[in-house]
Amino acid sequence: MREFNIVGKHVPRNDARAKATGTAIYTDDIKLPGMLHGRILRSPLPHARILRIDTSKAAALPGVRCVITGEDTPKIKYGNWRLFPDTQDEYPLAIDKVRFIGDEVAAVAAVDLDTAEEALSLIEVEYEELPAVFDVESAIAQGAPVLHDYCPSNISVNRKIQYGDLEKAFAEADYVREDTFTVHAVSHAYLEPCSSVAQADLDGRITLWTSTQTPYITQCLLASTMNMRENDIRVIKPFVGGGFGGKMELRTWEFCAAFMAKKTGRPVKFTLSREEEFLAGRRRHPMKLTSKVGFKKDGTLTGKDLRIHLDGGAYNAMGPTATFLCGNFGAMLYRYPSYRFFGEHVYTNKPPASAMRGFGAPQSIFATETQMNIAAEELGIDPIELRLKNAQVSGDKIPDVATISTCGFKESLEKVAEMCNWKEKRAQYKTGGGKGIGIGCYSFISGGVFNWFNTQYPFSAAEVRAFDDGTVHLLTMAADIGQGCDTVVKQILAEELGLKMEDIRITSADTSMTPQADLGAWGSRLTLMNGNAVIDAARKIKEQIFGMVSVRFNLNVIHEMECKDGKVFPKGRPQRSMTFGEAVAMAQKANRGEPLVARGYYTPRDKGMVTPAFSFGAQVAEVEVDKETGIVQVKKFWTAHDCGTVINPKAVEGQLEGAIQMGLGYTLSEQFIMDGGKTLNTTFLDYKMPNAMDMPPSETAHIDTYEPEGPMGAKEAGEGLAIPTAPAIAAAVHHATGYRCKDLPITPEKILNATKSL
Amino acid sequence: MREFNIVGKHVPRNDARAKATGTAIYTDDIKLPGMLHGRILRSPLPHARILRIDTSKAAALPGVRCVITGEDTPKIKYGNWRLFPDTQDEYPLAIDKVRFIGDEVAAVAAVDLDTAEEALSLIEVEYEELPAVFDVESAIAQGAPVLHDYCPSNISVNRKIQYGDLEKAFAEADYVREDTFTVHAVSHAYLEPCSSVAQADLDGRITLWTSTQTPYITQCLLASTMNMRENDIRVIKPFVGGGFGGKMELRTWEFCAAFMAKKTGRPVKFTLSREEEFLAGRRRHPMKLTSKVGFKKDGTLTGKDLRIHLDGGAYNAMGPTATFLCGNFGAMLYRYPSYRFFGEHVYTNKPPASAMRGFGAPQSIFATETQMNIAAEELGIDPIELRLKNAQVSGDKIPDVATISTCGFKESLEKVAEMCNWKEKRAQYKTGGGKGIGIGCYSFISGGVFNWFNTQYPFSAAEVRAFDDGTVHLLTMAADIGQGCDTVVKQILAEELGLKMEDIRITSADTSMTPQADLGAWGSRLTLMNGNAVIDAARKIKEQIFGMVSVRFNLNVIHEMECKDGKVFPKGRPQRSMTFGEAVAMAQKANRGEPLVARGYYTPRDKGMVTPAFSFGAQVAEVEVDKETGIVQVKKFWTAHDCGTVINPKAVEGQLEGAIQMGLGYTLSEQFIMDGGKTLNTTFLDYKMPNAMDMPPSETAHIDTYEPEGPMGAKEAGEGLAIPTAPAIAAAVHHATGYRCKDLPITPEKILNATKSL
Repeated sequence: MREFNIVGKHVPRNDARAKATGTAIYTDDIKLPGMLHGRILRSPLPHARILRIDTSKAAALPGVRCVITGEDTPKIKYGNWRLFPDTQDEYPLAIDKVRFIGDEVAAVAAVDLDTAEEALSLIEVEYEELPAVFDVESAIAQGAPVLHDYCPSNISVNRKIQYGDLEKAFAEADYVREDTFTVHAVSHAYLEPCSSVAQADLDGRITLWTSTQTPYITQCLLASTMNMRENDIRVIKPFVGGGFGGKMELRTWEFCAAFMAKKTGRPVKFTLSREEEFLAGRRRHPMKLTSKVGFKKDGTLTGKDLRIHLDGGAYNAMGPTATFLCGNFGAMLYRYPSYRFFGEHVYTNKPPASAMRGFGAPQSIFATETQMNIAAEELGIDPIELRLKNAQVSGDKIPDVATISTCGFKESLEKVAEMCNWKEKRAQYKTGGGKGIGIGCYSFISGGVFNWFNTQYPFSAAEVRAFDDGTVHLLTMAADIGQGCDTVVKQILAEELGLKMEDIRITSADTSMTPQADLGAWGSRLTLMNGNAVIDAARKIKEQIFGMVSVRFNLNVIHEMECKDGKVFPKGRPQRSMTFGEAVAMAQKANRGEPLVARGYYTPRDKGMVTPAFSFGAQVAEVEVDKETGIVQVKKFWTAHDCGTVINPKAVEGQLEGAIQMGLGYTLSEQFIMDGGKTLNTTFLDYKMPNAMDMPPSETAHIDTYEPEGPMGAKEAGEGLAIPTAPAIAAAVHHATGYRCKDLPITPEKILNATKSL
Repeated sequence: MREFNIVGKHVPRNDARAKATGTAIYTDDIKLPGMLHGRILRSPLPHARILRIDTSKAAALPGVRCVITGEDTPKIKYGNWRLFPDTQDEYPLAIDKVRFIGDEVAAVAAVDLDTAEEALSLIEVEYEELPAVFDVESAIAQGAPVLHDYCPSNISVNRKIQYGDLEKAFAEADYVREDTFTVHAVSHAYLEPCSSVAQADLDGRITLWTSTQTPYITQCLLASTMNMRENDIRVIKPFVGGGFGGKMELRTWEFCAAFMAKKTGRPVKFTLSREEEFLAGRRRHPMKLTSKVGFKKDGTLTGKDLRIHLDGGAYNAMGPTATFLCGNFGAMLYRYPSYRFFGEHVYTNKPPASAMRGFGAPQSIFATETQMNIAAEELGIDPIELRLKNAQVSGDKIPDVATISTCGFKESLEKVAEMCNWKEKRAQYKTGGGKGIGIGCYSFISGGVFNWFNTQYPFSAAEVRAFDDGTVHLLTMAADIGQGCDTVVKQILAEELGLKMEDIRITSADTSMTPQADLGAWGSRLTLMNGNAVIDAARKIKEQIFGMVSVRFNLNVIHEMECKDGKVFPKGRPQRSMTFGEAVAMAQKANRGEPLVARGYYTPRDKGMVTPAFSFGAQVAEVEVDKETGIVQVKKFWTAHDCGTVINPKAVEGQLEGAIQMGLGYTLSEQFIMDGGKTLNTTFLDYKMPNAMDMPPSETAHIDTYEPEGPMGAKEAGEGLAIPTAPAIAAAVHHATGYRCKDLPITPEKILNATKSL
């Protein structure tokens, strides 16, 4: 492990004090003079033609300042896949048709929330109800109702990957098995409901404060839907209370706030209720996955054939990416000599699914890992042994997709086995005996390479301004949404420049002030991508101040320099040091007063199609299942994972805890109860998210790797950890009960039904 | 005159709509959660030792959150003349002594203003009164009370200028006269009283919103008095309602807001009352000027000997600059083959005088011009003829001080004579007949060269970010205080890049966001200095996009290019054009996505000691004087002036109107009524400032010059115009009544007393 001063240390988070003291300003905390409050009218029908909307009564209600429908808007579609405009299928407000219960039909802005709410009830909408489809099978059946005219098949996107000779693979296999898995939708359930405040200035420019993961994407798409120039929109991200993929697109209320602010000349705020979030919010893709794998007798994999249908809901949202990534994740973890993937994204009359922590991997890898556990059992090989035999290693290539530069997967497997006493417990607990342990593994991306947003800027950027008082100012559009990237990039900068955390002022996520651009907080991209941009900027600063040290001490040209403890000096000769501030002052003097400013950039190049770096890990869950009730109690988790250099151990720990909480819910308790396209459980009372009391103890080990493409060796630790929990619990439940789950979630009913018949 | 597209046009001001609609946010409009309200306890005595301060009763008052005295502070002196630390003579709150009535002794922050006010009355201060001095003569007399221990003479600064052989000059002169003039103090009377709001963040950094002309100076001096690092302070200038030199220093309430915000953890606001502004605010320097000039019979000047005492009040403030500038201005307008200046800045127990629109020139040039009018009369030469004979011209040098690069003075004299029918009216109105016309002239600087603040940065800086949507973002620390520099620099940028005003977003005057640094709005420096920085940045942008046009159209290397009407093309070949946005997109593509950003700088080098460029002008006033009451009514003004290229005619017109209003007040109605160091007239009812109804009609001509050092040929038009009004009115009054004013203001009493004896 390399030696660092600040990287790898338990540095308190940048936002900790503000959040602990309640002074952190979230979007809904923003109050502007004359501000109006907005509400959205949503469709009560899953699929219908809009025949008539009469807003006159609503508009006449005292206190109402603005009512709009799709007809008032420029009617420009948007969607995150800007590289393929055909995929952009969404209007800010419905034009002609609604496609799910909760689809946005009209918006009201009034002097207070009650008036806005009352006005909604005065809007008359005449619908012609259309037949609707609520699952993939019905949606792709012959004669199914068509959601979007441009897409008569309801299959909006497909993705193929193929390499190796799959026929041969299965022919040569000693053991081939095919399983079909289904996984369900869950909610991001971020604690901060979506909120946006827009203000139009007198030049017609818009400032939008919004709870978003992607200020830059929001800026661009808002501009296009408003028919405005990109840079006449300024997007500022205040504190954000979680996103998990659910806040990475332009959303109706962002458009409505901006559009109505421009129309009324007054600031407009929209804050969603929790009910709206559950009723109509984005969610994780339900999928049906059919996986066929071949093995040699000794457990060596020969090939894999994976077919997936994604239930996308009414719009594409981030579905195309999920479709792509499912295929990529299907080829991860193990060495498949041949591999074929075919994925299809299908429209249904439900709230759109979209990106959610793991982005296709929780689903795809649940299938991979569960099937691996089944195969291990049938081949009579220990599940960890089977994995070790096939595990990917550093340098492995997935043809045309990616090269794995560093891989601590085998080490993770060995470490987790040791941590949990795997062998002993596997032997000790008899299958069906009520107690069990099981393993699940993961790999994840450290940011994406495929430029679906078609940004014209580097993927990430940073500006560093160095001052003669020994401080620096870091400006970055990277969005801290609670995951802690402000802290991480400050640590990286402090390490690179030999400064303390308190020497760094950070300004982040303001599209008018921070450098163009950053694609946002998704795909676990920021540590690596923004971190690299920060290092690039810092090195440009160092180049200049190193020169000054050379001048001051009349150094031989061969000296390497370093920045450490607030000083700059030739390596190994700290007696010839200047303070950082002195060196900056001298560089500034040499530049005849011009301040020391540098911009750094990062764009992954020659890094395949997926990501510059993969994380890996393995997790073991130990469960106890009540035979009478079928209730699963997870007793403990052990996790060994490879995220490269751990920049901030506390932050990684936090990610892991959050991931386990999400994984627990995904596996055991969370689901949307739907009836005819309507989400019935729209409160935290009915939507069963695990809370602090449900959290089992957990042990973790970081595998020591150094990722050359990552900043100071780091890779992702944000999403991957959310993946292994479901297959690990499912395996442990099988161990405890004999019930093999192939359709999440694992409910007591399923266990009882299954064990009854066993 | 050169051809421009936007420069020289009647472009509406950037701030016009916000101000007209009342949406402009001034500092006092800022309300932050939990904000405290501050008030300052001021000395009731002109000179006293502080024996004891007891704040306990004030601190115990419910609602009071913080009470501080000088003892609580780091006791660090400040002052704008950072280059000479000896001149920094002021503490944020009095230490040991008070030196004028209104001197700041303690500060209170409470939950509301009434509580803060009540708390002030509970602070007990025990003073030992000391003898005080209220005029220069007493202050420099033997045995006078000493205000500052470091300065037993009470003369804090002196300045000498000398060139040519003055003995010879007077020996060879046919006509020598010596006059002594006195000029009085007047108030800036900006419509927005000073206001500051400070907030400390949890990292201990301070953000200060303040009504200031000089965000950067405030940042630096606040940091040093707080014993903090410069860049841990962020100063933001909201809309400002005028400054005129009165808001260009660190002020007590800025320190107190910041210090108490840090101490209490809550935002703190101070807004001064108008009474405080009049009682204790900065003011124009009263001076005593003795000028001796020699002429040949034909009117040719042989030399001038000028001695000035500045009545500085209790602290230096901007007095040192005023002392320097008086000497410089004394040598302006006319060719003095020999010249000597000796100026002394004297402490008295009165509110400190400081910079005020014209910065020494209104006083110095009142003497010059009045004496010129007297000499013309005595030599029997028409005042304009006498001026034309001696007028400076382009290329004239003032040894060791400055070179006049462009000078439209003669043209101004000729033009104004023509405009007002000078010859006819001079002949028509008999001296003492109740009607008269008179002339006054001026020259002024376009920013200062002498770096008294000892900035380590360029004098001015600008950043331009160009976007592929055809917009640009201009960032500058230059402070628009109502004078309109945001509009002017936008025009300059629009002109340089061939864009429209609405294509430019501007962010200004935020020390954490806008580029380091700009010295502020004073000395009429911003059009020239920030304008040049903006052009420098724009040219760097153009260099990159010009290259792209070359590539696109495969141009010969000899082509010059231009930006015009939103397009970029080879000069004379508009058919080979790209839009500005296309060219930016292409340059960005060529840079592999890196955004097009450039910083521009300006520092006057090899421009002497005073300024890079001088403005000139002549003004004629026509008056009617009521013989019974002595009341002067100005019937009309005619002004011809040379400000180089007029960037924004409406803005220059506004400057002239404001200048005339100020000049009128200075000459005829405004003065501080003082009693024992106490200012008695502290309201707009008692302080007689001319209002809109008092404004006479006015005609103006711009003399067409092109200043090579100025942006697009521009020079200053902000302060110079405030100078000629007093001597012009005084001359006209003399013409109308026979009364020659040598001590401003011209009051009815003085006229009646004088005409009685005539």
